[in-house]
Parts: sequence; structure tokens; C-alpha cells
Amino acid sequence: MADGLNMSRRIRRTPYTDRVEAAGVRGFSVVNHMLLPKAFERSVEEDYWHLKEHVQIWDVSCQRQVEISGADAAALVQWMTPRNISNAKIGDCLYIPILDDQAGLINDPVLLKLAEDRFWLSIADSDVLLYAKGLALGRGLDVIVHEPDVYPLALQGPRAEALLSEMFGAEIEKIGFFKFGWIDIFGTRQLIARSGYSRQGGFEIYLNGASLGGPLWDKIWQAGQSYNISPGCPNLIERIEGGLLSYGNEMTSETNPLEIGLGKYCSLDGAVEFIGRPALEKIAAAGPDRLIHGVVFNAPACPTCAVPWPVRVGKSRVGAITSGIYSPRLKKKHWAVAY
Amino acid sequence: MADGLNMSRRIRRTPYTDRVEAAGVRGFSVVNHMLLPKAFERSVEEDYWHLKEHVQIWDVSCQRQVEISGADAAALVQWMTPRNISNAKIGDCLYIPILDDQAGLINDPVLLKLAEDRFWLSIADSDVLLYAKGLALGRGLDVIVHEPDVYPLALQGPRAEALLSEMFGAEIEKIGFFKFGWIDIFGTRQLIARSGYSRQGGFEIYLNGASLGGPLWDKIWQAGQSYNISPGCPNLIERIEGGLLSYGNEMTSETNPLEIGLGKYCSLDGAVEFIGRPALEKIAAAGPDRLIHGVVFNAPACPTCAVPWPVRVGKSRVGAITSGIYSPRLKKKHWAVAY
Repeated sequence: MADGLNMSRRIRRTPYTDRVEAAGVRGFSVVNHMLLPKAFERSVEEDYWHLKEHVQIWDVSCQRQVEISGADAAALVQWMTPRNISNAKIGDCLYIPILDDQAGLINDPVLLKLAEDRFWLSIADSDVLLYAKGLALGRGLDVIVHEPDVYPLALQGPRAEALLSEMFGAEIEKIGFFKFGWIDIFGTRQLIARSGYSRQGGFEIYLNGASLGGPLWDKIWQAGQSYNISPGCPNLIERIEGGLLSYGNEMTSETNPLEIGLGKYCSLDGAVEFIGRPALEKIAAAGPDRLIHGVVFNAPACPTCAVPWPVRVGKSRVGAITSGIYSPRLKKKHWAVAY
Repeated sequence: MADGLNMSRRIRRTPYTDRVEAAGVRGFSVVNHMLLPKAFERSVEEDYWHLKEHVQIWDVSCQRQVEISGADAAALVQWMTPRNISNAKIGDCLYIPILDDQAGLINDPVLLKLAEDRFWLSIADSDVLLYAKGLALGRGLDVIVHEPDVYPLALQGPRAEALLSEMFGAEIEKIGFFKFGWIDIFGTRQLIARSGYSRQGGFEIYLNGASLGGPLWDKIWQAGQSYNISPGCPNLIERIEGGLLSYGNEMTSETNPLEIGLGKYCSLDGAVEFIGRPALEKIAAAGPDRLIHGVVFNAPACPTCAVPWPVRVGKSRVGAITSGIYSPRLKKKHWAVAY
């Protein structure tokens, strides 16, 4: 149990939290009003090396799903994002920025197209559910917006595929990157995607049904023993080296997608209508004021970046580091994401 | 620093966090993506007795403000709540449930009427900002919805008035319960309300301007020495005994206002139009399925209620306890909020 974080119903446990505690979790963060494990027995550096060689099981239930279904579902999703989703196929996962009317980022979820009229947004840390509900109510759209009883469980690392293939059948090997398929878990049909918040490969099982969580964890844990499985969580070293952005860290509602390298997900050819389009077109025409970069630097220590760490040339501030950590691969140097 | 809670920019520090750490904070919670202190050196029970006798200074910056201004501001706020706000005056604070179309609770903020066309919603733990933005964009309303640079600081306890009166002038004594006025802080005009998340009396200063936070804390801390001031935070014993509800604990989006005693804030006479009205009228006609109660019980220990604690009569479940704690006033008994 975390000493520093008071527990209550308001900060929701997940179907896997009992198992995570039994596995020796040392701390949690809070994402979407839900617990996200942040450390187990090993150090971040030890976990980094393990993740790059073996397989880890991550409780990422906090990636809540916002389900949008109904006759106007596709129209609502398209309105929320500058990415043109008109060619998305059932079975696709798409990384989509979500904007407000100033082209500020509300969230950067993964969109899963379940049917022509049914989508999940697998969200980062903000209540997209309320944004979507507000838009739908305001515009009088024919949609149902709700949070289903779905709790993603990630298997990440180079051995994830072999483990899951052994457990659920070789068909999962045919699932392409950022695509999803279906597997049988305890007689239920469950969604599995080749995705996850690392660059080491792996899958996310979008488990539908809280009561199956404990048994599923146990089953994978047992089968994973011969793969050197370990409990884990998104690894700060690995995600910074991999250039994975974090909503709330590299971007907030003060950030537009063009300044953090998401221009490729912004349709500025006039093909689609979306919230914030005039503002984004204006920014595109003038060019963004700042640009995100990965940087490597030498320093005696790296800050936690609880507030952005100013970067100066002489006396003038030229940017800030939003996330940084010591890189064991580069030795004595730090990776960071900065703007 | 909290061992169990990993820090990053995503979980925002406040203008007072440095001071809170210097004052010996032992843990934080996360509310609205921001740190809320949860414990200092003393126990919850010691803090309870102190709060009932003296004055405490609480960093409640996490009560974020959602500012809604513009020609349609009053219409948008009214649309969001079943409480009839048509008679609200400038200077009033109103506790308002906010509903979705199923009459499920989105939040239960305090509304501050700053002008006929400008309001703050001082929110509990959900992104009301996104709901309001969505509603406004969807309906094409003439409003600006944003989060201002405002960080509430609470002074709670029977000695709060005397301390603040000494510091900022006796005019604050004229401020009625759930009303606000204005005081001068370092040459700036700042809002002060007679309100707060306790039943011991006190005020909340809605400090506008992050840079003033540290100096304001220091100034109050110094003047407070002769009042036996202490750093504090919402006290679980006191708030349960006082019947103060907590969003996320006693209510979620699965809860309607009628089952948690908020019927008096629901205009069901047809006088106002609001989101969820048909659903709420239906619930009112049938009568709510469950009702919240304060309960006192004897038990060897009280659970943390990280999940609601079932209450059974014989073998049948008749309700659940959502928040509970040992009552030092009643001795050996526990207070709880249950449905």
C-alpha cells in the first residue's frame, strides 16, 4: 500500500489491484481517477533492462474507454479530432489528438473502431467522457456516450508475443501494429490489440468484465513464468528514449498538436471539419512558436520535472524540459523531452 | 515528499506546495490533476480536535475554478444544474449539483456569481471544464469557458474569523454564510468567501495569481501564531460527522441527486430547463431506489472504503458504507455515510 497516497473510493481500484499489491507494488500514480502502479521491487533502471529483454504485465486499467455509439458516432469522433478518420477500418487503432476550439490539446487517445457506428477512445488523463457528452448534448447528436466495464491489461516486451501466442493461439501473431483482433478468455470474447505504451512490442487486452481480472492476471502470471515475466508499468527511461509523449507532461491544453510533432495527424487540407480547425490553420500558416525535441545532456542529476525545467542559453530561456531521466544505455547522460 | 505517489508535471503542484512540504506534509491525494495534502504530523484524530478549537490553513487549490463568462453564461450554468439560479445575486455562493442527461451526477461544485454574465464553478474531482466546453461548442453558445489562475486557500475553524479580521479588516465579519466579498492582498483585490469543507466555520480566499501564493501563506502563518494556527486539510472524521458529501465517494455518475439528499437543490416545478430533467422527473415520480443516511455503528475496525463496504441484514445486502471512520467524540463507535 502506498504510504503517500490516501485511498478512497474516489481514486478507483482496478480488477488487478489486489494482484498488483500481492506482487509488491511500491507506489501508485492516479490517472483518470484510477490507480496506476508506478514502481515494484526493482529500480526503474532494472525494470528498463528487463522490459527490453523479457515480458512484463502492466495494469493499465486507467486507460479508460469512452465508448461512442449510434448513428452520429463517426461524425462526433471526427468532429473531436483533426485526424481524418474517414478511411479507418474496423479493427484499426488510431492515435488521435483531441482539440478544443483554440486547438489546445484535450487528450491524445487511441481510437479503436469497433464498428461503423461504435468506437472506443482509450484515453490519457482527462475526462474525455465529459467532453464527448457535452458535445453530444449540445449539438443534439444521436449517440450514446458511456464508460464501459473495460480494463486494459498490457503485456509489453519482446517475449509478449510468444507468451500470448502460447496462451491464446497463434492467430494473434497475425495482428498488425495498431490493429486489434479477438481472443477467447474464460469463454468470453475479448479484444486484443498490438499496442502499448512502450517501444518494445507487445499487446493490450481490453478486458471486458471486472470479475475476470484476477483470474486473467493469475493465468498469464503462471504461463509467464517460463518467459521470466515480471510485474511492471510504463517505464520512464524507455518511454522518453522511445519518444512517447505523455498528456499532462509534454502537452496540456496550452499546447497545440503542431508544436509537439503531431502535424501528421492533422488534416489541414480542408477535407474534414473539426473543433479548433480555424485556430489550427492560423497556427499552421504562421508556424508554431515552439517545437518539441528529444535532447541528450550531461548533468550531475536530472530533475523530477514536477514543473518544467528551464533551459537557458546564457541568460535567456529558450525552452524547458518536461520529462527527463538518466539513461543507463548512454551512461552519465540524460534523455529528455523538451520544447 | 510522498513515497507512494510519483510526481510529475501531470499531477500539478500548487502555489502553496513548497510551504505545505516545509510544514511537514505526510501524504497527498490527487484532485483535479492537482495535489491535495492529506496528512501532516498529527493524526487525523488530533487534527480533528484542533480543527474544532483553533484555526487551520488548508491548501485547497485543487478546487479548480471553471470560469464561464459572456452573453450566454447564465443560460449555460442554468442548463447544467437542476437548481434554479435565477434569483442568485452577485456575491452569492450556491451549492449546485451538475447532471448528465440520465440525471447522474457529474460534479457538485459551489457556484460563485461574480457578475450577471460571469461565474466561477469551484469544482470537486471531475473535469467540469471539458463538460462546459463541450456543451458550449455543441450548442454554439456565446461564452468563454476557461480555468483562471485561481488557487483557493482555506482558513477553517472557530478562530478563522478573528485571525482574518485582524489581518484584512473587520468588514469580513459582515460576509454572510455562503457569500463572498473582497479584500486587499499585497495591493491586489482578492475574493474571500465564508465557506469551506468543514462545519467549523471559516473562509476561503480565492487567490488570483500564483506568484502571491507563497507570500500569502507566510503572512497568514505568521499572524496565525497567536491563534495556534496549524497546517491542515479536510478532516475525514469532521466531514463525515458534519454530513459533507464527497464526489467520487458518496456519489458518482451512477448516483442521482434525489438519493443523496439533494432534492432541495432540484427545481422540479418546471420553472427551469436543465440537462437530465426528464430523467430526474421520472425518478422523482417513482421515488428514488435508495437513500443516503448517516449511521453510527460499533465495530472493531472501520474499513478505508476504497470500495463501498456492504451492509447486510442477515444474508441480504441492504446498502453500503461509502465513507467511515472511528469517532473520537462518540468513542468506540464509527460514523459513516451509507446508502
